[in-house]
Amino acid sequence: MPTVEQIQQILEPLFPGLMGVRLVTLEPERVVAELTVRADLCTAGGILHGGAYMAFADTLGAVGTIINLPLGKRTTTTDSSTKFIGGARVDTTVVGESVALHRGRTTMVWQTTIRSAEGKLCAVVTQTQLVLDA
Amino acid sequence: MPTVEQIQQILEPLFPGLMGVRLVTLEPERVVAELTVRADLCTAGGILHGGAYMAFADTLGAVGTIINLPLGKRTTTTDSSTKFIGGARVDTTVVGESVALHRGRTTMVWQTTIRSAEGKLCAVVTQTQLVLDA
Amino acid sequence: MPTVEQIQQILEPLFPGLMGVRLVTLEPERVVAELTVRADLCTAGGILHGGAYMAFADTLGAVGTIINLPLGKRTTTTDSSTKFIGGARVDTTVVGESVALHRGRTTMVWQTTIRSAEGKLCAVVTQTQLVLDA
Amino acid sequence: MPTVEQIQQILEPLFPGLMGVRLVTLEPERVVAELTVRADLCTAGGILHGGAYMAFADTLGAVGTIINLPLGKRTTTTDSSTKFIGGARVDTTVVGESVALHRGRTTMVWQTTIRSAEGKLCAVVTQTQLVLDA
Repeated sequence: MPTVEQIQQILEPLFPGLMGVRLVTLEPERVVAELTVRADLCTAGGILHGGAYMAFADTLGAVGTIINLPLGKRTTTTDSSTKFIGGARVDTTVVGESVALHRGRTTMVWQTTIRSAEGKLCAVVTQTQLVLDA
Repeated sequence: MPTVEQIQQILEPLFPGLMGVRLVTLEPERVVAELTVRADLCTAGGILHGGAYMAFADTLGAVGTIINLPLGKRTTTTDSSTKFIGGARVDTTVVGESVALHRGRTTMVWQTTIRSAEGKLCAVVTQTQLVLDA
Repeated sequence: MPTVEQIQQILEPLFPGLMGVRLVTLEPERVVAELTVRADLCTAGGILHGGAYMAFADTLGAVGTIINLPLGKRTTTTDSSTKFIGGARVDTTVVGESVALHRGRTTMVWQTTIRSAEGKLCAVVTQTQLVLDA
Repeated sequence: MPTVEQIQQILEPLFPGLMGVRLVTLEPERVVAELTVRADLCTAGGILHGGAYMAFADTLGAVGTIINLPLGKRTTTTDSSTKFIGGARVDTTVVGESVALHRGRTTMVWQTTIRSAEGKLCAVVTQTQLVLDA
């Protein structure tokens, strides 16, 4: 399994790097990361943009799938659905934890829960990853 | 109704500005925008990151709701669901068109269709906006 | 392509038969059906149960996929997401129209719009069908 | 709080009654119910119809919300999204457990996990309930 540092290095030049996603934990059924709520990740009113929640979560679910792929396979997200529950204010940090609900041969399903640093629930994102021949 | 330029100016320092979202058309039941697929909006393999699709669409649906809000009201997204259908390659442009499926007093529902410059379907995002007292 | 009567006959002993789903139109990119809002399809207050909307739509999207399957393939729904917009009263009829948003080799995406007999929008259901070897 | 029997009695003449939903446990943050996979709840091939999963879950999430409503309030489902993960065969029983992810003044979010009698994961349904003045 790749290390946190190896995956972080892959993410850096990509969209998660632009956003400042910081991987913290990488386990076969669980991925954790942090995100600082910068002003340029916000919507009006100084709260984290809904799209930033979704992009943050999408990254975690995809990373979780990739570290579970058999050799010769690749993955693509087919579906993602999000419940927005609470706002996260600028200059705070949110923590995303993605857990595998299902790791099958054809699809994997990951659910990411995003919380404020104080543990307040902000959003829940559930995504389906299709497993395809590479 | 605000102009495209007025809304664009509001978006600039926010997450849509970081991504480079460019508003094109603003009508009461329809919002259109463009996005250049920059390398730092991509995932591995040089295709637009799923999170970028979702953040792009979320912006359009929220803008569409805001221009329909009665005085003294504000909005928040409660739900968003996305079908990813086709990839968009780096250095191309995608076009998002968001149309109102429902504009009620309590909720509005907007659906955003994202296509490549050639018209190939990339993603469909449907979101619910709650209408609240400001 | 099978006829409306042939598909209706297959549905009769199944869940759509229990509910009273009546197929009306069967085209490669469009399936239409009707449903009478019986009391035993309702929730409290005499309005169509949210689950009945979803089961009605799921049937249409699955039928639409099946009539598009290449030989030697089968399908299963992986994801479904629903926006509930308006209620349908007992003893009225609702009409569901499902259209193909995407008909690919690996997945198909169908979106079903449910309206009252007067054309009022009740619900929108978008579902992903995986195409698998039979 | 109402008892399991009181809620069951309300459900009997409604869609959950037609399907045979049997409430088992009713707690402020958790609702459990069973469903026998009758032939007339199935799709082709003798597996539980996707719509039956969704209607079963929708019932649990709505019941969970209702038992949490303050006086003078009512609820309606605005959004539901489902991941289908495994099939349930005819003549078996499935168990649905719905837990509150969020119980706010404006919305509640409930997630229902449906498993086979042996504990195999079949589906996960997440729904948003709007809380309105009665």
